[in-house]
Amino acid sequence: MKVAILGPRGTYSEEAARKVMAEPDLELCQDIEEVFEAVEVTRVEYGIVPHENSLEGSVGMTMENLLNRNVQIYQEVVEDIRHSLMAKKGTSIQDIKEVISHPHALAQCKSFLKKLGVATQNFPSTAGSAKYISEKGLPGIAAIAPKIAAQLYDLDVLKEGVQDDEHNQTRFLVISTQDHTPTGSDKTSIVIGLHDRPGALYDVLGAFAKRDVNLTKIESRPSRKGLGDYLFFIDFEGHRKDANIAELLEELKADTSFFKILGSYPRG
Amino acid sequence: MKVAILGPRGTYSEEAARKVMAEPDLELCQDIEEVFEAVEVTRVEYGIVPHENSLEGSVGMTMENLLNRNVQIYQEVVEDIRHSLMAKKGTSIQDIKEVISHPHALAQCKSFLKKLGVATQNFPSTAGSAKYISEKGLPGIAAIAPKIAAQLYDLDVLKEGVQDDEHNQTRFLVISTQDHTPTGSDKTSIVIGLHDRPGALYDVLGAFAKRDVNLTKIESRPSRKGLGDYLFFIDFEGHRKDANIAELLEELKADTSFFKILGSYPRG
Repeated sequence: MKVAILGPRGTYSEEAARKVMAEPDLELCQDIEEVFEAVEVTRVEYGIVPHENSLEGSVGMTMENLLNRNVQIYQEVVEDIRHSLMAKKGTSIQDIKEVISHPHALAQCKSFLKKLGVATQNFPSTAGSAKYISEKGLPGIAAIAPKIAAQLYDLDVLKEGVQDDEHNQTRFLVISTQDHTPTGSDKTSIVIGLHDRPGALYDVLGAFAKRDVNLTKIESRPSRKGLGDYLFFIDFEGHRKDANIAELLEELKADTSFFKILGSYPRG
Repeated sequence: MKVAILGPRGTYSEEAARKVMAEPDLELCQDIEEVFEAVEVTRVEYGIVPHENSLEGSVGMTMENLLNRNVQIYQEVVEDIRHSLMAKKGTSIQDIKEVISHPHALAQCKSFLKKLGVATQNFPSTAGSAKYISEKGLPGIAAIAPKIAAQLYDLDVLKEGVQDDEHNQTRFLVISTQDHTPTGSDKTSIVIGLHDRPGALYDVLGAFAKRDVNLTKIESRPSRKGLGDYLFFIDFEGHRKDANIAELLEELKADTSFFKILGSYPRG
């Protein structure tokens, strides 16, 4: 199974890929856009992209590509984000003078790093910081990265679970060009634009309310036209092939200025 | 006027500060949380933080701190994001072999960089990449940063407006512990949590609709309890001191599981 993910090796994306597939044949991409492209041109069967983090919120580049690319959400995977402190083999935690990682990861480990009393340095990716330490053989420097990175880059894990907040989760999406068949417990994601009149959103939500369809997420994002003009990303329970959902979608399509179905897929 | 902003010098935050204040006495902070803290403990009178970008969406750390800190939104400032390519004095654009900047800025200049045909390297901040080139005196390397950074770090601007998309804007918020007085053309921002029942959001929006109060933004964000549990950030027209808005706020407070007013302030 060919699967495109964000590189380098050892990211949380890779952890998510290994959760949904036994032996994924990974294609490593430079950025999220490349993952979508690989799926859209069918160079790979699936892609895995981060969608929403419980602390940081939605991932803009993923929302943007869902909107503009010809791909479907096929599945969702929720990953617990547990950061590990790792360094060159034989290093003890007392030797650490500096910690490098992605700024989000460093921010999420603020209390731990404060207690450790070391300098920090921003790095473009968590797994990349582990790779860097491994390649340069740097002593006294540690990385904060997923545990899987220590294995891959032959580093010692000095401490697991160094993040401050226990409720740190990321939802990843498996994307594909094909649709997922109904399972009986599904979700559908759409994007809509509203006509410019007061109460437009209220009326749209009325279409859900009168059918007792449960919204699980609604998020406005600025459209490409600039700030003040929004698109609404809405997730709700049900599959587009269910009769009541098909009817709801028809009504929404007629009453909105923009309408796109992002996919129906099993609930995570 | 003491104003806390994200450092280093030469960021878009600094450009925004200079737009709203003539001679700001800048306190440079390491991250967004430090800006909020400086305002909350009244070490400074105002802080300026990025809130929402038209391409990237909302800034998670700002939403988080608005939710948890005892500060008010005092004003909003919309900044056009125009990236400039800059390098050591005397460098011509043909000499450039590599471009460094924040990954978002590099992504926003993808077409330009492709035409230029040079390597790129991620850097934690746009202004920081300009500062780095200036301090190391590196030839053949250019930074993508706000124009103001070239002046501050004594670099030549090789080309202005190198971003692909013309509609790249960031909304910054001026935060303070004091409230802004009504101006007649105001906005109010609130955060609410919904009771766990179908149609709860629909009913809340009904409170706005029946008073003809215009929503300008609604965004759900995962609460600290994890994915699936959301808080709603809502912006709407009117000042909390207006009679109909005061009544609306009372109704919302009674019908929600969480309720916080983030501030009333002039429309940007």
